[in-house]
Amino acid sequence: MTTTLPPAVAEAIRASFVRQTLMQNFGAQLTGLAPGHCEITAPILPTALQQHGHGHAGLTFALGDSAAGYAALGILPEGSEVMTVEMKINLLAPARGKALIATGKVIRAGRRLTVVQASVAALREDGSTVEIALLQGTMIPVPPA
Amino acid sequence: MTTTLPPAVAEAIRASFVRQTLMQNFGAQLTGLAPGHCEITAPILPTALQQHGHGHAGLTFALGDSAAGYAALGILPEGSEVMTVEMKINLLAPARGKALIATGKVIRAGRRLTVVQASVAALREDGSTVEIALLQGTMIPVPPA
Amino acid sequence: MTTTLPPAVAEAIRASFVRQTLMQNFGAQLTGLAPGHCEITAPILPTALQQHGHGHAGLTFALGDSAAGYAALGILPEGSEVMTVEMKINLLAPARGKALIATGKVIRAGRRLTVVQASVAALREDGSTVEIALLQGTMIPVPPA
Amino acid sequence: MTTTLPPAVAEAIRASFVRQTLMQNFGAQLTGLAPGHCEITAPILPTALQQHGHGHAGLTFALGDSAAGYAALGILPEGSEVMTVEMKINLLAPARGKALIATGKVIRAGRRLTVVQASVAALREDGSTVEIALLQGTMIPVPPA
Repeated sequence: MTTTLPPAVAEAIRASFVRQTLMQNFGAQLTGLAPGHCEITAPILPTALQQHGHGHAGLTFALGDSAAGYAALGILPEGSEVMTVEMKINLLAPARGKALIATGKVIRAGRRLTVVQASVAALREDGSTVEIALLQGTMIPVPPA
Repeated sequence: MTTTLPPAVAEAIRASFVRQTLMQNFGAQLTGLAPGHCEITAPILPTALQQHGHGHAGLTFALGDSAAGYAALGILPEGSEVMTVEMKINLLAPARGKALIATGKVIRAGRRLTVVQASVAALREDGSTVEIALLQGTMIPVPPA
Repeated sequence: MTTTLPPAVAEAIRASFVRQTLMQNFGAQLTGLAPGHCEITAPILPTALQQHGHGHAGLTFALGDSAAGYAALGILPEGSEVMTVEMKINLLAPARGKALIATGKVIRAGRRLTVVQASVAALREDGSTVEIALLQGTMIPVPPA
Repeated sequence: MTTTLPPAVAEAIRASFVRQTLMQNFGAQLTGLAPGHCEITAPILPTALQQHGHGHAGLTFALGDSAAGYAALGILPEGSEVMTVEMKINLLAPARGKALIATGKVIRAGRRLTVVQASVAALREDGSTVEIALLQGTMIPVPPA
């Protein structure tokens, strides 16, 4: 993974990501980090499906939410944490293919709240990419102890 | 599980739930079904956590979304399916305790769309129950083939 | 209007409501106040319609948002203010009839944020009442100066 | 206003906009139309304020919602209509300045539903522009009679 974040911030995000056992459960990996941006990539595992055999909305949501959260964390002072206040997801197409790629970005970093957006794309079997979900929400910074 | 749904509808929901491998991944169980209502209960497994060791927002969302979807499915003609159009979650408190209980209900069943709501509560270690999330969204019925 | 709020808090809300010129524009009135609850009633004026002659979604939203905000304000220390962080509305039925009645309530009052809900009902010409919208959102308290 | 829409579609949108009396109430004007895009500009009138003298969230919402709706309408067959299913708004900064400019766009046009986004910017007194709100929602096409 390439990143343009300060090494200490990138390292803190990586350490936080590893502690998210749900991300490991999903086989997710941090694949991009820049100030206000984060990309997470995951396969659509047989253990994360809904009733039609596509990825569950909970998988898509979890990847988008985490990407948005780390996008927000990347612009906060070292030692900060963030929590999701609220998040809205519109599902655009079924979650099927070889992998899901969630891209989070900061829309506005406020003193008390950070507004974020995430897009989730599916990498189809034929190599094409289709946007499958759009998320918009709010993160709350938890200052360093 | 007790249910007041017609047996064929309840059976179809149970069969659909079993096909949701993410629900099995989370150890989730259908614990209540009534017309326009659905309850899903799940432990907070060590494989579904966020970075502070609480349940991940993706876990909470997935349980709420599935409960809302099956609440909607329970009032549709036999053989129908539903898909999530969009869903919004407000997180109220950390997802910690012995179990999460998601309760979905139908707010308005329209001809083309069904508006749903779900609440997720955590059963704390001391036996108390705390509401940890509130979801509001839209399901789209997929008519029987 | 009857209210069970402390008189100073009720008075502050009434004064704030009067300063909301959009509420006057809509002919809206505060018709109920209790701790964590607020009701606003408004006619559907010829100056607040969408293209089919029903009340505009912006009217419905404004009434629900204001009711939710004053529900939140009613449980804060005297001299506080609130601002809307985010709000989501699901429209359930057309806004037509003699009046709209928006009911806001506090779902969870936190130290930093307050989660709110509002329902908007239409009083039809025949005297029946139909729920036309459901809102869920977040208010942020602004402490007394 | 310049537009790249087919003249009949642009004309239908203009005619629909004129029927939205709330837009006239707000002094709003259609200032841009292209396939899947719509821009609406409005002053912040003294009759559309909240309690601090800024534009009411209901004003910002109404402009964003209408811009999103007409963005969706511009790509539908002539004679169609659209209605808002649901809309979520995150407020980013106070609605103050000389005017608000709402820009709606289509994210995904489906057979049954259209997902839309809108951004609302304030033109400040000093000529700068600040994004004050971001909306994400769903429109439902109503086919020609």
